[in-house]
Amino acid sequence: MLGSLVLRKYHTAIVGATGLVGQELVRILEQRSFPMASIHLFASDRTVGSKMWVNHREIDVRELTANSFDPVDLAIFAGGDDISRSFAPTAAKRGAVVIDSSAAFRMNPRIPLIVPEVNAEDMENHRGLIANPNCSTIQMVVTLAPLHKNNPIKRIIVDSYQAVSGTGKAAVDELNSQSKAVLEGKSTIPHVYHHQIAFNMLPEIDVFMDDGYTREEWKLTNEARKILRDNNLKISATCIRVPVVTGNSMSVHVELTNPMFPEEARNILANSPGVRVLDNPSISHYPHPWAVVGSDEVFVGRIRQDASYSNGLAMWVVADNLRKGAALNAVQIAEELIARGWI
Amino acid sequence: MLGSLVLRKYHTAIVGATGLVGQELVRILEQRSFPMASIHLFASDRTVGSKMWVNHREIDVRELTANSFDPVDLAIFAGGDDISRSFAPTAAKRGAVVIDSSAAFRMNPRIPLIVPEVNAEDMENHRGLIANPNCSTIQMVVTLAPLHKNNPIKRIIVDSYQAVSGTGKAAVDELNSQSKAVLEGKSTIPHVYHHQIAFNMLPEIDVFMDDGYTREEWKLTNEARKILRDNNLKISATCIRVPVVTGNSMSVHVELTNPMFPEEARNILANSPGVRVLDNPSISHYPHPWAVVGSDEVFVGRIRQDASYSNGLAMWVVADNLRKGAALNAVQIAEELIARGWI
Repeated sequence: MLGSLVLRKYHTAIVGATGLVGQELVRILEQRSFPMASIHLFASDRTVGSKMWVNHREIDVRELTANSFDPVDLAIFAGGDDISRSFAPTAAKRGAVVIDSSAAFRMNPRIPLIVPEVNAEDMENHRGLIANPNCSTIQMVVTLAPLHKNNPIKRIIVDSYQAVSGTGKAAVDELNSQSKAVLEGKSTIPHVYHHQIAFNMLPEIDVFMDDGYTREEWKLTNEARKILRDNNLKISATCIRVPVVTGNSMSVHVELTNPMFPEEARNILANSPGVRVLDNPSISHYPHPWAVVGSDEVFVGRIRQDASYSNGLAMWVVADNLRKGAALNAVQIAEELIARGWI
Repeated sequence: MLGSLVLRKYHTAIVGATGLVGQELVRILEQRSFPMASIHLFASDRTVGSKMWVNHREIDVRELTANSFDPVDLAIFAGGDDISRSFAPTAAKRGAVVIDSSAAFRMNPRIPLIVPEVNAEDMENHRGLIANPNCSTIQMVVTLAPLHKNNPIKRIIVDSYQAVSGTGKAAVDELNSQSKAVLEGKSTIPHVYHHQIAFNMLPEIDVFMDDGYTREEWKLTNEARKILRDNNLKISATCIRVPVVTGNSMSVHVELTNPMFPEEARNILANSPGVRVLDNPSISHYPHPWAVVGSDEVFVGRIRQDASYSNGLAMWVVADNLRKGAALNAVQIAEELIARGWI
């Protein structure tokens, strides 16, 4: 069957191409030699007309319209909730398979929410739209799913240390310019965040809900439940914005059904897809955001028995929020669709 | 009795006067018009011979010897574990009351470990040496003691976000110089910490123990148990060093004996000494380290019912680690000794 050796190539679109996740998407598609027949870059008004290099060719960034997706097989959306709400269903209707990085459709029960290492099979009967989870959700479930499978997790307490690139370019610029100002003894005026982010910690990511949690904290909670297919999983999250450009960290505390030695957890995780264990504290060997930037894996260290709970483990989980936390996971979803013949 | 109106003044010494906590001690003694008959400043070799201003007088910083304490009524030690081990017992033997900010004696059962708002009465029968707790312990117990009294806490899970000034001046310099280098696109070489701290998070404070926790995490645990007089209190701490100069933050999760509405916790805390509730998330009103520097109180916000535990509360606690977390608490111990006639 000679035909099966001729690999299909896909007319691919990136929506929100000029944003931080969009740029990372281009880099990852290039690095992984994604089988593109063509690439179509779309952005919001501000950057329409600019050009980006993709595989040594200069590509125009164009304005998004309802007709944009007519020649497209695969569209990766990274343009925010509003853009996704307006255009993702249209793209899917016009025949493109959409991988959507926004929060718009993640909790829709008819739309699969996918971390390929964890629940790729959930997209078997997709209807043209697949949701890419929140950055912190992804790194948490990549780490916890293999443990959960071995020894069901009943409760998760997680505190995050989230990088400003998760907010976008303006936030990275604000961290840099405020940091410079503070170092020069000048005052700062916050624009992107409600308070100064340089040399500071802000316990506010996304909007506050009536119960005192933020939407980010509920995203992490509800998305983890959906991906791990366990609506009874108890989760309490506190999401903190920290003055780091890229690389999200999390202190994760889990309560398991049965005891688990840290060594057992390390062994399970060392043999799990997408996870790298860096856990030799005696030589200060643990993950930290500065070191994981540009890496594809989710890094786990400081795995120890929870001193306050016999069936508990505590650990420190770090990943590149723009790569595995966003762009890479989207491309991996596309690769998995191709590998399984679902596109 | 005219005599009782003549307030006694104290010959006061600061050991480690030129360090960050030492300098803060001088400022606080001045600001609070502490009743000093004289002030004696001691430091390690490096800064001996320098001068510091105290109450508009220039004071020599002198070398510490066994005889240094002969004219001293009250000695506040902020020179680190080794200096305290070598000199604090001598100072006490020679008649000074010692308030020791190091970790050297904190867990000694014959030495009171004091946060004045919480357990001032524990120093009634002191033997001349009183220990000042770790920075993160102080802000945690000031917040939790009033709740614990109303509704006993059974378990605490706490993740910290700790400022570099807790390490000392060299660490503050390192954060500043590394931040500048990174902003200029230059590389950095870590000296004080094992990895770059600028724009990064390091899950390592103090040394690692065999169980995978750090000594800082065990200090927080054991000191909280001693101050709250509850050895059964279950605590799991993860202590993270963050690129903040001053101001320690903590995400604290408590399991209480009975349910407690967030509003009840807010009311209790609003009426507790040393605590300030800043908790109006709808207008982004919550504590953050940049805003608490120079303040005496422990600030608490984001108080909410723990979504994963019916008798649980989650909250965000921030304080100036050099003031309430160190120097201020030491001076408050001294003031309490005076007020109670125990010095």
